[in-house]
Amino acid sequence: MRSSTLPYATRAAGLVGSVIDSSTSLLHKQTHDIVRFAMGSPAAEAVPSEILAGIAAHQLSRPDAYDYAATEGDPPLHAALLDMLRGTSDETTAERLTITAGGMQGLDLFCKIFVDPGDLVTVESPTYTNGSATALSYGATLLEVPVDDEGMDVDALERLVADAGRKPKAIYTIPTFQNPSGVTMSLERRLRLLELARDWGSMILDDDPYGLLRFAGDPLPTLRELGGGDPLVFSVRTFSKIVAPGLRVGWVDTDPELQPLLINAKQAMDTCTNLPAQRLLAGFLTGGHLADHLVTQRAEYRRRKEAMHAALHEHFGGIARWTDPDGGFFLWVTLDGDVDATALFDVALAEGVAYIPGAAFSPSGRFANALRLCFASTPPERIREGIARLRRAVEKLRP
Amino acid sequence: MRSSTLPYATRAAGLVGSVIDSSTSLLHKQTHDIVRFAMGSPAAEAVPSEILAGIAAHQLSRPDAYDYAATEGDPPLHAALLDMLRGTSDETTAERLTITAGGMQGLDLFCKIFVDPGDLVTVESPTYTNGSATALSYGATLLEVPVDDEGMDVDALERLVADAGRKPKAIYTIPTFQNPSGVTMSLERRLRLLELARDWGSMILDDDPYGLLRFAGDPLPTLRELGGGDPLVFSVRTFSKIVAPGLRVGWVDTDPELQPLLINAKQAMDTCTNLPAQRLLAGFLTGGHLADHLVTQRAEYRRRKEAMHAALHEHFGGIARWTDPDGGFFLWVTLDGDVDATALFDVALAEGVAYIPGAAFSPSGRFANALRLCFASTPPERIREGIARLRRAVEKLRP
Repeated sequence: MRSSTLPYATRAAGLVGSVIDSSTSLLHKQTHDIVRFAMGSPAAEAVPSEILAGIAAHQLSRPDAYDYAATEGDPPLHAALLDMLRGTSDETTAERLTITAGGMQGLDLFCKIFVDPGDLVTVESPTYTNGSATALSYGATLLEVPVDDEGMDVDALERLVADAGRKPKAIYTIPTFQNPSGVTMSLERRLRLLELARDWGSMILDDDPYGLLRFAGDPLPTLRELGGGDPLVFSVRTFSKIVAPGLRVGWVDTDPELQPLLINAKQAMDTCTNLPAQRLLAGFLTGGHLADHLVTQRAEYRRRKEAMHAALHEHFGGIARWTDPDGGFFLWVTLDGDVDATALFDVALAEGVAYIPGAAFSPSGRFANALRLCFASTPPERIREGIARLRRAVEKLRP
Repeated sequence: MRSSTLPYATRAAGLVGSVIDSSTSLLHKQTHDIVRFAMGSPAAEAVPSEILAGIAAHQLSRPDAYDYAATEGDPPLHAALLDMLRGTSDETTAERLTITAGGMQGLDLFCKIFVDPGDLVTVESPTYTNGSATALSYGATLLEVPVDDEGMDVDALERLVADAGRKPKAIYTIPTFQNPSGVTMSLERRLRLLELARDWGSMILDDDPYGLLRFAGDPLPTLRELGGGDPLVFSVRTFSKIVAPGLRVGWVDTDPELQPLLINAKQAMDTCTNLPAQRLLAGFLTGGHLADHLVTQRAEYRRRKEAMHAALHEHFGGIARWTDPDGGFFLWVTLDGDVDATALFDVALAEGVAYIPGAAFSPSGRFANALRLCFASTPPERIREGIARLRRAVEKLRP
């Protein structure tokens, strides 16, 4: 009587991310020496674990640290977060903030509330895989908009939407130190994007996990600030890149009228965000640790990006191009010729270096000859070794 | 240019739970003396916070405790959980287990994978609000199946499905110490339910958060055990009720072929379950703390249920009926006559006692004269006071 076929096949197509899956799961299982440019995590040594453990000793001996949290977020973290944002481009008010299980849940909440099957959602090309996968899992039709050194090409967005013959329900963007390309959208384009969204009545899904990790160049106002509270701007933020990803704590900044819907939707996802991590973060913020931590991290990430740039010049000069981010975690390398970065992956892993192939960042599989490299999680001397290994892998792949 | 209307209204209807929302958010804001029978949390004093803080001091000073976890779960917790389940009715194998952000995410994952708009999903009546809300949020059409003292009325299920003229995609059940009624499905009905699911090719969503909290009566095999690994049985479990809800850690036990889909779906929800809580739980389990903890909790919950029964006999004898659970957290009280338990809620809160009105547990608003009372989170003497207050509220509501 055992049923041999399961009725899920029809939904499988919407649940993508196979390249990232296989590579991350492989990386979790690998134990030998690999230079890991793949995952977008802070370096282990960048995580303030000693400070967090000290806070844990105090905060996590309180019995109330293990109860359900308020769905909109634990009040001490809510208050500390408001303080943290004061004076930044993301300064906001209490009724606009909802704590989430990382930035990823912010994207899931957005899609659950706004995206119905068949809705047009524009994504950057390349874009963050799990962001586009989430929109797909709600049945969105994706439209890929090119990215250049000034971020999303907003003129192309306008043209592609005109060609599509219908307005997008949502425009998904990572405007600052974009994942995966590392580029930042110019001020002019940010303003034009807001104009288009208002003309179309489209929501902007403003995903900005790296904005506080600028190590060069001049700061730009966030879409949150430029929008001035416009309900069309739904801003997703996270502690994953600035403190630690394993805590799974982020927040969304939205029109206050959305909060009841966010609470309802989140209750049907995970009830609330885990409370011990919220208490750890509240202690970290009220203890005044973030400012120093960010100064240290920015300086270190700059050093690492420069080390990766130098190594790329040494090993890939004349056979590839790459971006020059002013912050964040990622570089985007485009190999000349028709090198297949997905085929290269296994060869590179055998050489002892991991990355994410470019095709993983395009729902339609563009960027076959590109690679995303995370410079943030690897010390400079290991970065040099990793890039040298990557070059050897390219040589091996060539016939 | 500010847009005044938001395009979310069409989805709002699917995101329900308003009564529970308003009452829990009220409870979070109330500070004065209230006997809280509303939330389904373990008592604060039942949470092993001293032990967990001791584990935290060791585990959370390791930098790798704050990184992204493997999406399927952190290996130490995975291994400890397999050990914990050995010899129980939920004994299983590694490739069937996926760690989730609490039981709620198990339900969300199930619906994301299996429920398409318009699909028929049967729910118990009354049922767990956030469970049915999740199915609704994926566009399910719900069919309510009555519950009596032996759990879901499986004959009624068969009849109602015949009347509906189509087979359900899924049958949602909380077979043991059901939320909200506290009743347990008999062995005969469990077996018959499996037969029906196999005849129909329907998935069984087997949600069993309380099974390890039996304090009376004889244990029954879980649907997981009775199913013998049938891919139609999708089992959702959680540490929320047996250790602490704020950790947001649970697991699903499913056909191994589902795991790639579960991983993809979870990556688009929250990337992974928060790692510090997984490490705390792994330490709690490998430290051998769970067995003693469960013995203590079962004895205490029995005392509390008996105190609530005694108080109900004293104050509600002749004007209400109530269930007699052998475990878990909840009693279900049905008031005689046409007392409106939703209208009673505000009066009761003013008297200093909180509960969840019955209508919150039925998508169609049945059970207007019923109340869910959580006996687990309140000491016996406070239970007596709370039931006395509840009786006063009933008197005040009467004209």
